[in-house]
Amino acid sequence: MLRLRSETSLAWVHRAIGAMDEILIDHAHCEKKAASTAINLIFRYQDKPALMRPLSELAREELEHFEQVLGVISARGGEFGRQAPPPYAGALHKAVRPQEPDRLLDTLLCCALIEARSCERMKLLSEHLPDAELAAFYKGLLACEARHHRVYVELAVELTGDRDAVLSRLEALAEHEAQVLAEPLPLARLHA
Amino acid sequence: MLRLRSETSLAWVHRAIGAMDEILIDHAHCEKKAASTAINLIFRYQDKPALMRPLSELAREELEHFEQVLGVISARGGEFGRQAPPPYAGALHKAVRPQEPDRLLDTLLCCALIEARSCERMKLLSEHLPDAELAAFYKGLLACEARHHRVYVELAVELTGDRDAVLSRLEALAEHEAQVLAEPLPLARLHA
Repeated sequence: MLRLRSETSLAWVHRAIGAMDEILIDHAHCEKKAASTAINLIFRYQDKPALMRPLSELAREELEHFEQVLGVISARGGEFGRQAPPPYAGALHKAVRPQEPDRLLDTLLCCALIEARSCERMKLLSEHLPDAELAAFYKGLLACEARHHRVYVELAVELTGDRDAVLSRLEALAEHEAQVLAEPLPLARLHA
Repeated sequence: MLRLRSETSLAWVHRAIGAMDEILIDHAHCEKKAASTAINLIFRYQDKPALMRPLSELAREELEHFEQVLGVISARGGEFGRQAPPPYAGALHKAVRPQEPDRLLDTLLCCALIEARSCERMKLLSEHLPDAELAAFYKGLLACEARHHRVYVELAVELTGDRDAVLSRLEALAEHEAQVLAEPLPLARLHA
C-alpha cells in the first residue's frame, strides 16, 4: 500500500524510542515542513485548479498535527525550537527532474514517499513505544499519513491521466528513497 | 478598533462591486498569501514558542478561507489562477525596520494592518453588494479578519511586553499604510 522499497529496522525503532524528546521536535519540524511544501506547491502551480483545494486541505491537516506535536512536547516539559534536519528530504528531492511536467510529477511522488515513510515509522513507534499515551498518539496519526500518501499519488494520476506511468515512476523513486535511508545516521530523526 | 488611519471611499466600493470576479480571485490570493506569511514567520522565528501555535492556527484559518473563496469562484463559473498583485503588501513592508527585534515587531504590525484593511473593505462589500449571498459571505468573514488583526497586535504586545510602544509603532505604520493606499490604482483589488 505504501509502496516503500525498504523496511525500517528495529535498530531505528530502539534508537528513536531512546530519544523521544528529540524525535518529537523533529516530528514537529516535519509537520511544519509538510505544510510549507504543500503551500509552496499551491503558489508554484496556481494555474492547476485540481491541486488547490487538496493541497490546502492537506496543509491545514499538517498544521493541525504540528500543533498537536507542540502540545505533546510541552506536556513532557520540553520546548520546541531549532534542530538540525537530517539530509533525507534534500537527498530525496535530488531525484526530481528539472523540466515540467516531470518536475511536478516527481515532486508529488517524493511527497508521497515522505508521507509513506512517516506512516511506516509512526506505525513502528505506535507498536513499540512503552509509553501507552505516546503510542496511542502515533497510532492516531498513522491513518492521516497513509491518506496523505494516497492524496499525493492520486493527484499525480489525475494530472497525468496515466496511472501506469505514475506507479512506474513511483517505484523508481521509492528505490531511490530506500537508498537515501540505507546508511542510517547517528541521529534520532523520523527520516534518518 | 482596527486602528486604520484612512477610510476606504465609496469609489473603491463601486469599482470592486463592478469587478467581483476579479476581486474574488484577488481575495483567494490574499488568503493564500496570508497563510504563507504566517508559516514563513513560524519558520523564521521557530525559537519563539509563543508564536508557534497562534500563527499555525491563523494559517489554518486563512487556508480554510482560501478554500471557501475557491468555492465561491467556482460556483460563479470562474476559475482561480494567476493574477497580478497590487503593490500594497510590498510597499507596506518597506517600512519594516531590518534589525531585530524591530523587524519582527514591524512585521507583526504590518500583518495586523493588512487584516484590518481587509476587514474594513469586506465590511463595505457586505453592506453594498447587491448579491445577498455574496454579501453574507463577506459578512461572515469580517469577524475573522478583525480577530486576526487582534492576534497580530497581541502577539506583538506579548513579545515586547510593552503595549504603549506597540500601539505607538502601530499608529506610525497605520499612517504609512494609509499613504500606500492614498493613490488608488485603476485595478480591482482588495488592497488597491
